[in-house]
Amino acid sequence: MDMQPVDSYLREIIATIRPLRPAQLPIAEADGAVLAADASAAWPLPSFDNSAMDGYAVRAADLTGASADHPVTLPVDGEVAAGDTGQHAVAPGRCVRIMTGALLPDGADAVVPVEWTDAGTQTVRISQEPKLGNAIRRAGDDASPGDLLLPAGTRLGPAQIGVLAAAGHGVVLTRRRPRVTVISTGNELAEPGSPLVPGRIWDSNSYMLAAAARAAGCETTRHQTLGDEPELVLASVEQAAAASDLLVTSGGVSMGGEHDVVKAALTKLGTVTFRKVAMQPGMPQGFGLIGPAATPIFTLPGNPVSAFVSFRLFVEPAIRLLQDLPPQRQAARRATLAESVRSPENKRSFLRGVLSDSGAEVTPLTGQSSHQIASLARATVLIVIPEQVTSLAAGEVVEVLELP
Amino acid sequence: MDMQPVDSYLREIIATIRPLRPAQLPIAEADGAVLAADASAAWPLPSFDNSAMDGYAVRAADLTGASADHPVTLPVDGEVAAGDTGQHAVAPGRCVRIMTGALLPDGADAVVPVEWTDAGTQTVRISQEPKLGNAIRRAGDDASPGDLLLPAGTRLGPAQIGVLAAAGHGVVLTRRRPRVTVISTGNELAEPGSPLVPGRIWDSNSYMLAAAARAAGCETTRHQTLGDEPELVLASVEQAAAASDLLVTSGGVSMGGEHDVVKAALTKLGTVTFRKVAMQPGMPQGFGLIGPAATPIFTLPGNPVSAFVSFRLFVEPAIRLLQDLPPQRQAARRATLAESVRSPENKRSFLRGVLSDSGAEVTPLTGQSSHQIASLARATVLIVIPEQVTSLAAGEVVEVLELP
Repeated sequence: MDMQPVDSYLREIIATIRPLRPAQLPIAEADGAVLAADASAAWPLPSFDNSAMDGYAVRAADLTGASADHPVTLPVDGEVAAGDTGQHAVAPGRCVRIMTGALLPDGADAVVPVEWTDAGTQTVRISQEPKLGNAIRRAGDDASPGDLLLPAGTRLGPAQIGVLAAAGHGVVLTRRRPRVTVISTGNELAEPGSPLVPGRIWDSNSYMLAAAARAAGCETTRHQTLGDEPELVLASVEQAAAASDLLVTSGGVSMGGEHDVVKAALTKLGTVTFRKVAMQPGMPQGFGLIGPAATPIFTLPGNPVSAFVSFRLFVEPAIRLLQDLPPQRQAARRATLAESVRSPENKRSFLRGVLSDSGAEVTPLTGQSSHQIASLARATVLIVIPEQVTSLAAGEVVEVLELP
Repeated sequence: MDMQPVDSYLREIIATIRPLRPAQLPIAEADGAVLAADASAAWPLPSFDNSAMDGYAVRAADLTGASADHPVTLPVDGEVAAGDTGQHAVAPGRCVRIMTGALLPDGADAVVPVEWTDAGTQTVRISQEPKLGNAIRRAGDDASPGDLLLPAGTRLGPAQIGVLAAAGHGVVLTRRRPRVTVISTGNELAEPGSPLVPGRIWDSNSYMLAAAARAAGCETTRHQTLGDEPELVLASVEQAAAASDLLVTSGGVSMGGEHDVVKAALTKLGTVTFRKVAMQPGMPQGFGLIGPAATPIFTLPGNPVSAFVSFRLFVEPAIRLLQDLPPQRQAARRATLAESVRSPENKRSFLRGVLSDSGAEVTPLTGQSSHQIASLARATVLIVIPEQVTSLAAGEVVEVLELP
């Protein structure tokens, strides 16, 4: 069986994934969602003239020449606080006490900060002359109706949630965080913390891949680990597909035959195809659509490092495409190798490495076999070695992929 | 009232926050938690010799000289699959079919990949000579008992969760994701999506700060917005303190007097102090400990940008300290100003900016007032202008703080 190049496999995935249907999400649930339409201001922001400080709303002309040596005293006509909705007015030669954020009274054209005054409540002595418009925030000085606040395709983080809420968007049209279900398969799997007999290993992939999907911005469900029973695997996968936007399995896809439970369960559907991809680690891969909703499914190899690298290379772009984001989270980075590396011919290899603080240099870790997960936990990047390259000397420049 | 320098206020916070008590967390819940003790291997990893490929377990000496032209045929004594726990054996001149991850039979000293054979089940024809130890993963070749897997202080992401699970850690001693409750206060606040009358604004801080706390790795509760009733605010804060590791309020702390509900509610406790910090935006700040558990509370100013900047500067380091992480997430970064900037004297100012893709240049945004949130949603960094600097020309180098 010929091996499929990494780029060709990735193109196939990118061509297959369809973005989620946009839906109105309440602002309280929109964190991590991606805008499916431009979000604009419907009203001026702020929506009314208001005070930037605690102080006194005045007519600036009444305070011409006011100074510490020549303070001006004005009668105070009550007070307006933030949240007061009655319309006050400042008459010539008088003032109104005002709080930060409060509606500016009619007639006022400046606010004098309390720090310039004796803080009086009946009359106030003012010892500095304000400029026209001092400490006033004008309606619309942040945004006018129709102004674009955030373009479609923006992932909503704290500041973006803030501006949408401030502009009154109670719901926003978005593509939500994808719902991802992760399933590990294999008779050899035991739960971490349970006793082990030779021949069995502790399941790490379901926990690791669930955390990876969360790090990629998904709502994640970790399915209980399944043994090597194709009927049970098929039923579980079909059930999970109905409740998920994307499925990830691990194990059961190597090239050896009847023990490959995931392959055995899914091959008969005809919508999931299995192939060898020209990469190391991670050669055996499966991808397709499953169930009435054509839910994307990735069947990753069972070696923990292979599963992790496959997730980073293929599943993460698919998750981004579900939210209609560009498939790669950032432009490729480059760094200089601190040590020489070797790589198999005709496979693109992904070596675990540690990037220097400056990002200029990358050091390959020891323990690069696909079952050696200890070094994965110390890696900050994957070093990419092209297919036709079998060795690189220290000092050569390589592409690196950042890890979560 | 004198202003407190930013650094002095931050030192006070850092000296006050105590890390959470370590607790045993199930591995399925440990994502985002921070190890409170070194995690080591208790058993060899892998725990038994096993096959790296699908193929045949052999004695290498039986295949000396095997080649395509001179294949060697061996009888096959059954098969061992991943997860099989019975101990097989390879007799001289014979072999056992073996799957990836399966326990290596006694007597075998190499595995022949299925690709080198005719894939026979009764007898197998092998056309390549394996090296001693070929495709065998030896017990302990990833980690030996006692080897340090991850040091105390490691934040657990996908790969770290993976290695702990693979090494059999069903529970891990960690400091969990902090539980943070966010409360907005102010009579002026209306829910986004509801109609607005002049004098009222839509609440954005509670949604924004809840998202910021999630981005900082917390489990976040957004409390319903509160009006300006000190008794209700105090009761809500005390109730939230009992269920949280850290509290954040916004609003009600400006310098103007009786309308400052948070100040009014908390001043009488004596454990929360209010001060002016020499910064822009964000001058009015409060910090202290509240309730029987001495829960840290931050009372942030109500202007959205002030609240956001204060969260980044003061709350985020406190959250990190709760997990016993260093208070700053990374070393300070520097960039060159693309445009000139102005800054008030005697205050450290934090201007919203956009960092270039290379990270070398930063462009200040327009709309830098503390109520102008529109520009916040476009910013990727805060530009830090020191206290004594009032202007900087394009081309000068500044410190920048990354935003979530």
